[in-house]
Amino acid sequence: MAKKPLNIGMVGYGFMGRTHSNAFSQVGHFFDLPYKPVLKAICARDAAKASAFAEQWGYELSETDWKKLVERKDIDLIDIASPNDTHMEIAIAAAKAGKMVMCEKPLGRNAAELQKMVEEVEKAGVPNMVWYNYRRVPAVMLAKQLIDEGKLGKIFHYRAKFLQDWTISKDLPQGGAGLWRLDVGVAGSGVTGDLLAHCIDTAMWLNGSIDTVSGMTETFIKERHHALTGKTEKVGIDDASLFLARFHNGSLATFEATRYARGHKALYTLEINGEHASIFWDLHDLHRLQYFDHRDEGRVRGWRSLHITDGDHPYMGKWWVPGLQIGYEHTFIHQAADFLDALGKGKPAAPTFRDALATDQVTDAVLKSARTKQWENVSA
Amino acid sequence: MAKKPLNIGMVGYGFMGRTHSNAFSQVGHFFDLPYKPVLKAICARDAAKASAFAEQWGYELSETDWKKLVERKDIDLIDIASPNDTHMEIAIAAAKAGKMVMCEKPLGRNAAELQKMVEEVEKAGVPNMVWYNYRRVPAVMLAKQLIDEGKLGKIFHYRAKFLQDWTISKDLPQGGAGLWRLDVGVAGSGVTGDLLAHCIDTAMWLNGSIDTVSGMTETFIKERHHALTGKTEKVGIDDASLFLARFHNGSLATFEATRYARGHKALYTLEINGEHASIFWDLHDLHRLQYFDHRDEGRVRGWRSLHITDGDHPYMGKWWVPGLQIGYEHTFIHQAADFLDALGKGKPAAPTFRDALATDQVTDAVLKSARTKQWENVSA
Amino acid sequence: MAKKPLNIGMVGYGFMGRTHSNAFSQVGHFFDLPYKPVLKAICARDAAKASAFAEQWGYELSETDWKKLVERKDIDLIDIASPNDTHMEIAIAAAKAGKMVMCEKPLGRNAAELQKMVEEVEKAGVPNMVWYNYRRVPAVMLAKQLIDEGKLGKIFHYRAKFLQDWTISKDLPQGGAGLWRLDVGVAGSGVTGDLLAHCIDTAMWLNGSIDTVSGMTETFIKERHHALTGKTEKVGIDDASLFLARFHNGSLATFEATRYARGHKALYTLEINGEHASIFWDLHDLHRLQYFDHRDEGRVRGWRSLHITDGDHPYMGKWWVPGLQIGYEHTFIHQAADFLDALGKGKPAAPTFRDALATDQVTDAVLKSARTKQWENVSA
Amino acid sequence: MAKKPLNIGMVGYGFMGRTHSNAFSQVGHFFDLPYKPVLKAICARDAAKASAFAEQWGYELSETDWKKLVERKDIDLIDIASPNDTHMEIAIAAAKAGKMVMCEKPLGRNAAELQKMVEEVEKAGVPNMVWYNYRRVPAVMLAKQLIDEGKLGKIFHYRAKFLQDWTISKDLPQGGAGLWRLDVGVAGSGVTGDLLAHCIDTAMWLNGSIDTVSGMTETFIKERHHALTGKTEKVGIDDASLFLARFHNGSLATFEATRYARGHKALYTLEINGEHASIFWDLHDLHRLQYFDHRDEGRVRGWRSLHITDGDHPYMGKWWVPGLQIGYEHTFIHQAADFLDALGKGKPAAPTFRDALATDQVTDAVLKSARTKQWENVSA
Repeated sequence: MAKKPLNIGMVGYGFMGRTHSNAFSQVGHFFDLPYKPVLKAICARDAAKASAFAEQWGYELSETDWKKLVERKDIDLIDIASPNDTHMEIAIAAAKAGKMVMCEKPLGRNAAELQKMVEEVEKAGVPNMVWYNYRRVPAVMLAKQLIDEGKLGKIFHYRAKFLQDWTISKDLPQGGAGLWRLDVGVAGSGVTGDLLAHCIDTAMWLNGSIDTVSGMTETFIKERHHALTGKTEKVGIDDASLFLARFHNGSLATFEATRYARGHKALYTLEINGEHASIFWDLHDLHRLQYFDHRDEGRVRGWRSLHITDGDHPYMGKWWVPGLQIGYEHTFIHQAADFLDALGKGKPAAPTFRDALATDQVTDAVLKSARTKQWENVSA
Repeated sequence: MAKKPLNIGMVGYGFMGRTHSNAFSQVGHFFDLPYKPVLKAICARDAAKASAFAEQWGYELSETDWKKLVERKDIDLIDIASPNDTHMEIAIAAAKAGKMVMCEKPLGRNAAELQKMVEEVEKAGVPNMVWYNYRRVPAVMLAKQLIDEGKLGKIFHYRAKFLQDWTISKDLPQGGAGLWRLDVGVAGSGVTGDLLAHCIDTAMWLNGSIDTVSGMTETFIKERHHALTGKTEKVGIDDASLFLARFHNGSLATFEATRYARGHKALYTLEINGEHASIFWDLHDLHRLQYFDHRDEGRVRGWRSLHITDGDHPYMGKWWVPGLQIGYEHTFIHQAADFLDALGKGKPAAPTFRDALATDQVTDAVLKSARTKQWENVSA
Repeated sequence: MAKKPLNIGMVGYGFMGRTHSNAFSQVGHFFDLPYKPVLKAICARDAAKASAFAEQWGYELSETDWKKLVERKDIDLIDIASPNDTHMEIAIAAAKAGKMVMCEKPLGRNAAELQKMVEEVEKAGVPNMVWYNYRRVPAVMLAKQLIDEGKLGKIFHYRAKFLQDWTISKDLPQGGAGLWRLDVGVAGSGVTGDLLAHCIDTAMWLNGSIDTVSGMTETFIKERHHALTGKTEKVGIDDASLFLARFHNGSLATFEATRYARGHKALYTLEINGEHASIFWDLHDLHRLQYFDHRDEGRVRGWRSLHITDGDHPYMGKWWVPGLQIGYEHTFIHQAADFLDALGKGKPAAPTFRDALATDQVTDAVLKSARTKQWENVSA
Repeated sequence: MAKKPLNIGMVGYGFMGRTHSNAFSQVGHFFDLPYKPVLKAICARDAAKASAFAEQWGYELSETDWKKLVERKDIDLIDIASPNDTHMEIAIAAAKAGKMVMCEKPLGRNAAELQKMVEEVEKAGVPNMVWYNYRRVPAVMLAKQLIDEGKLGKIFHYRAKFLQDWTISKDLPQGGAGLWRLDVGVAGSGVTGDLLAHCIDTAMWLNGSIDTVSGMTETFIKERHHALTGKTEKVGIDDASLFLARFHNGSLATFEATRYARGHKALYTLEINGEHASIFWDLHDLHRLQYFDHRDEGRVRGWRSLHITDGDHPYMGKWWVPGLQIGYEHTFIHQAADFLDALGKGKPAAPTFRDALATDQVTDAVLKSARTKQWENVSA
């Protein structure tokens, strides 16, 4: 069956511009979908870099002004992979222009921004999705299946953390290329929006909504050289963000994100303890899922290390043969596949902008609680 | 050199009565100490069981009344291994009788009880110690050495949890033999005193005092059959207890204890992240320490799995040869050895009753915070 | 700088046709190379399937006769990804036609076939390479670096195994699509050529040549239904193949391959023990390297679990950020990158056909030893 | 019930003298047995050291001449924990004197010695046992149970190794205290008798007899200073010993022992692959058993890490509570318990001297094969 071309307009060529471009480039090689993504245009302010990126990835053309990109008739979908402070304006313009919109997370810098974005995409009625890619790790998707099938029973505990160690040096400047995540004006927050948001997105997808939180944040290094202003300036982001939570289903949780956990590069872990079974997953060995089933015979009951590489594991029938692992970039390919599949069926693909708003309502409550030193309800 | 005999009067023959008896029985086989512990008397209410225990462990005699035990002239040290609600009375009587006092943790049911106990043993001037045995795991003692030598640098994060799953069934009764830990009247609290207390004792020993906490507790099963009254009664203990904390040194922490974490039998874990290095330890593989040193050359930098079985590891020179592991019971043997060694030097051996009081001030603050839903300062 | 197009003619669209196509499709997105591979033509006997594969992967055209492919003027490189019994004829024809030749391993069905192939490609003077892809796992390449730098010192032991469990059922037929590896006529041998060959290629690359071997093979299931003839026939392949070896450098080795090791899908492991340091790697967690350095201080000496995802690890600077892993398919991308890089420099890229011949001389000696029940010298 | 005293006469106070003394000292504290071992006499040539050891462990008296020990009327059982070259003479004398005999492994220096020992103990009709302690690791005993219950099905592969690294330095002398294992005259062989013998004992117990072997040995350091002669002398022991084997049940095996595997202190590992299930165990984490069961549902099928600390695990009901591990020394306690239990029932306790002879027939065949460079049948 002939596949319908879907013309992509990509904004941003950084780390996320590469993961998204790769997703659209690869998805058709492995998944049988009604749409065939076409890398139509890449947009970035630096014309030479945009052009080089287009050459490298096979984009047909490059733009330097995202407004022109949004206006182009030959673009079906705008994918936003630029820094956080640009998301709202581009997304709303794209929606108003009738484009489908995909956006890297966090969707905006705070729940107020997201509220507007959700309103506009819903008003425009355009398909939309946020790249919370970790839902599409096959091991995490398997966890979702097992939970939804009731294999865990009643849930008592949820535990997530996202540990990094790349900003410990006080000599690291804030702001500028590759470092805008340290600049609160651009990023909106520190690890709360960058890392905790991932943990929360997965958590609510797996375990339902969160009612109340008690948070704590810290900025370990108070002042840093700013790469753009050239001055030493107060650091506005949070370096670490932790919270206790109570889910609507009665389970208790701890969440933690930090960039000061020496020895961990990108250690996102999650654990869920249910009445009958428990699961554990971590990003440093993303192709494994740890599973414990209390119903096993006592003598041979233990944590199972599942090597998620078989045909009956989510997504894995599309890849190689049992025993051969995939990696990080594939989570984006899976997300693109799910989006295109849903598009063919006329259905939304999660997480939508609205789903991302729910996540941001939690991060806002966490940051508020850290200030008020009180438990805060998550507003819905 | 002739060793001085030290006559032990043991109260309790349960799980802890066995670990303590084993410690005093074994310590002289492996450690060269100025004192030779003599298993003089075991005390328990059931005369037949006390007698059988004496026969099995080589106690010279048995008593059924702890008051008589405390009064005996031929007893040098009273070791309390009976349920929590008996600790205060026995310890104070023993101190007043001029006996050295050792006591299983938690020392009392709350900080008020401990306050009195500390006052009395200090007034009596008798050597005293609380069996927070996990300090004496060789891997944990090595962690202490590394931290004290400054190998970790400034500490940013502390993370501890103690996970069990043995009370998930609603059919488990509260109270009675082997189950008094579910009876709030006897135990004082649930996992807070039983499990969190261990985590806090180790944490303050390794990382200094805790300033403030935000806690949350839950009792998942609200009513249970009571084995002694024969009625279904409200459950008074906490099944789960979690808290965020800020240490005096500025580091942030999460603590969690629960008996509802399916798949974990006694998973006490601790992790400390410092500027230069990090350590991780867990009780399920207690003979290993995970160590990460950022000063290693980049290409070959990674978490090291230290197999703590060598002569240059704490305590291990006394045991077998490299590669051959020891287990849980040895932590008590080490604690007995340290106590006897300190006694010979006329020094206190940590943790003293006063050290245990500091731990209980934290658990009291956690329980208070869980009620007030506020951050609470730890009173000192 | 403009990149020179390099037109690829691919033979075979099975598992290996996909990994090779992916390699040539992806390599330019991540590596800066003098050549730009162009997916010119795919060749397979079934015209419809060849055409569909061309559509899916972006090949410009498809052929059904490899002889025609080899004759095409617009093809620069013939890549052979078809079953083993076709390799020799195609490779020799391609070389004679002046094409560069790449070939999936094992290069031929025995050393006699390889001898001819080597002679022809060397006579033709065409660049050639065999896809022993596991050399290009970043962790394995790091092992190579560490060994070459002398970090391990004198080598005492080498240990490799490749364990699978997919042919245990006696109901699995031999021969036919996806199962030609069980048909000795097509495959040449069983696990010896399929799995042991990988182990030997890596071993000789890391640790030098092998002098003598003592081998043992077994065919656990003696007869199987043949999918092509429709009859139950004697199984000619080896299901398991093990050997002891002595390397030229004096080190001792065990090698083992089997498809009857329940619980292992594709567990290729290798370990090298040197005077000063040791390394261990396994394919099920291919993004990790275990490294032990005896020069570490005794108390904190242990196996380091290196997470091979950093910029200073081989190839990893081209991918994502620290902590984010790659997978199996990337080994082929790296091999393509190295080939194209070497091509630009006018140098051969290992392993060449001649290197593969050396590997086959070992597998031939192993199979001979299994028959003679004697130690056999590896002929050179 | 009153327990019968059983008077022990121990020969040797080295590493093994300590493990055996501990076993007899501890066994009654944890196991309910018909006999109560009495530490009657320790025998060693150095009177002062023998006396100190007696004091430390509670032996009633010490002897310096084993012949006098054997003649004593108040000794029921002679336990031999002295170097290998003394085993035969003492064991035969003890048997002739009508004593029960226990002996550390290897029972003798070669099968010829063992043949005589077996004849004499059987002629004397005295209970006898050899301390192949690793059979009594709870995890290994569980493996035995699972195999005997048929859980693994037909066995295809057995794999064992025992890796150490303590003799790599060329400055280590041979002979003398603590180093007699390097002196071939005392030890009989190197790692073959010391380490491989353990692997073979367990293997034949778990998987039945071995028919044929192909072996290879190496002495990496050819000359060493001899601590007793004061001269540099040729090293007679094997530093490494490897062999391939075929079990009588048709399964294939690799065995390896070495003291030149940098990074491994006492890494005894074993793996068995059966039709339906597989197991893996290693001595560095002896309280765990890895178990894979192919009958699990595909999506959640994986290696289970069993934490062997529960009441339904072999021996563990006698120790602490789930989650709390035991260690190396406990294997000797279990072996003593099994011996005393069997004694009460009038049954032999395995492994007897005859069982040990079967192990030595394999090690002899391995050493012969290493010389003849042929496969050798194991004589029975």
